[in-house]
Amino acid sequence: MRDEEFTLIGRNPVIEAFRAGKAIDRLFVQDGLHDGPISTILREAKKAGVKPEFVKKERLDEIAGQGASHQGVAAYLAAFHYSSVQEMLDAAHEKNEDPFLFILDGIEDPHNLGAMIRTANLAGAHGVIIRERRAVGLTSTVAKSSAGALEHTRVAKVTNIGQTIEELKKGGMWFVCADMDGELMYKLNLKGAIGLVIGNEGEGVSRLVKEKCDMVASIPMKGDIDSLNASVACGVLAYEIVRQRLN
Amino acid sequence: MRDEEFTLIGRNPVIEAFRAGKAIDRLFVQDGLHDGPISTILREAKKAGVKPEFVKKERLDEIAGQGASHQGVAAYLAAFHYSSVQEMLDAAHEKNEDPFLFILDGIEDPHNLGAMIRTANLAGAHGVIIRERRAVGLTSTVAKSSAGALEHTRVAKVTNIGQTIEELKKGGMWFVCADMDGELMYKLNLKGAIGLVIGNEGEGVSRLVKEKCDMVASIPMKGDIDSLNASVACGVLAYEIVRQRLN
Repeated sequence: MRDEEFTLIGRNPVIEAFRAGKAIDRLFVQDGLHDGPISTILREAKKAGVKPEFVKKERLDEIAGQGASHQGVAAYLAAFHYSSVQEMLDAAHEKNEDPFLFILDGIEDPHNLGAMIRTANLAGAHGVIIRERRAVGLTSTVAKSSAGALEHTRVAKVTNIGQTIEELKKGGMWFVCADMDGELMYKLNLKGAIGLVIGNEGEGVSRLVKEKCDMVASIPMKGDIDSLNASVACGVLAYEIVRQRLN
Repeated sequence: MRDEEFTLIGRNPVIEAFRAGKAIDRLFVQDGLHDGPISTILREAKKAGVKPEFVKKERLDEIAGQGASHQGVAAYLAAFHYSSVQEMLDAAHEKNEDPFLFILDGIEDPHNLGAMIRTANLAGAHGVIIRERRAVGLTSTVAKSSAGALEHTRVAKVTNIGQTIEELKKGGMWFVCADMDGELMYKLNLKGAIGLVIGNEGEGVSRLVKEKCDMVASIPMKGDIDSLNASVACGVLAYEIVRQRLN
């Protein structure tokens, strides 16, 4: 059932997991409980950006399994460990390479996210930054679609992509996003410390994030439709960066 | 239900469809029937590479709908019209361009096929050649994944990919396939009349097809896993061809 994830049962395990910074995918709290420890859990959940699901006692009994004392709380740990952006920069530094990061601004399809993590791994990127809200996290479908790459690739979740870009720019990184109205990607200088920003499948890169990018790259398009599949576009751009880095 | 496909009911409509060369996705024949017209249908099906499904009368009643006389036979027409390889060459000629074709050697995942047709359209390829056996055809999932590209992109189905490559080589086309042991794609000359050969998701390009290719290209890989997602690899190679054609 939940083969790649873990279930936490009871108040203390859940509070400890939040405080240890573990990635929690779902939090279940029994309807109608309002005591001190529950408030603590809800506060920690808010800080971590996890939206609690208020459920009936029967649902918690089911999650906890027969006889387990859940005290009105249970949580599902994320299947995989998230990294920090700093760990990505450290990894680049250790390899004596200019940082190369993927920044995914709201990918919704787990197959796309998996394929992009696979591409990041093979293109030699040091990590993949994803958005916390309105985006798919590291589910087991993502793991499967990544064909094993997820275990070898750093993924960080951030609350505000724009702010993360701002901070990384201060550290000397450049950012390029893809958009149809950009300059032909072959004409841009994509060498050096670079972040590749890929937008949501339907709407592309959000305006606020696009404004923070130093360059807007376009992929040449000759056809009758609007855009490539998001993971294909990500691959094409990532490999243009790889090509320029090889020269 | 079958929103993008058509159902043929009865012996004559099915025989006529086969004889007109229409693409039939599935053929249903009532168990135990062996008369002359049924033999004709089975012979036509074999010629067209369609495997008949022998079913009970009740199943056919259901497919045909209430009151329709199916005479023991029904078929689903493919959702989309297939082109011929010659039509692709003609289209290139009309545009005064060197032919650029995708040859897909056994893609099984409809999402991948859809994404590749989308890429073919935007990269300016003149068509996509797919294999008749052990490969996904033009289903409605493919159409959906192509994001509308299928309606604008020629797709041909051939029985023998190797033979098609041989014939196109006589006409002056060059063929490149992707494999890890190939030469770095940036170092190959991919200009001119070219066919890009992409292999099956699991096994890559089959040996017989690979032997017929003039060039084997490799995508630079720095990571911990074996290969990119098939549609991403296809996109990266297609855009290396686009890049070289622009120069």
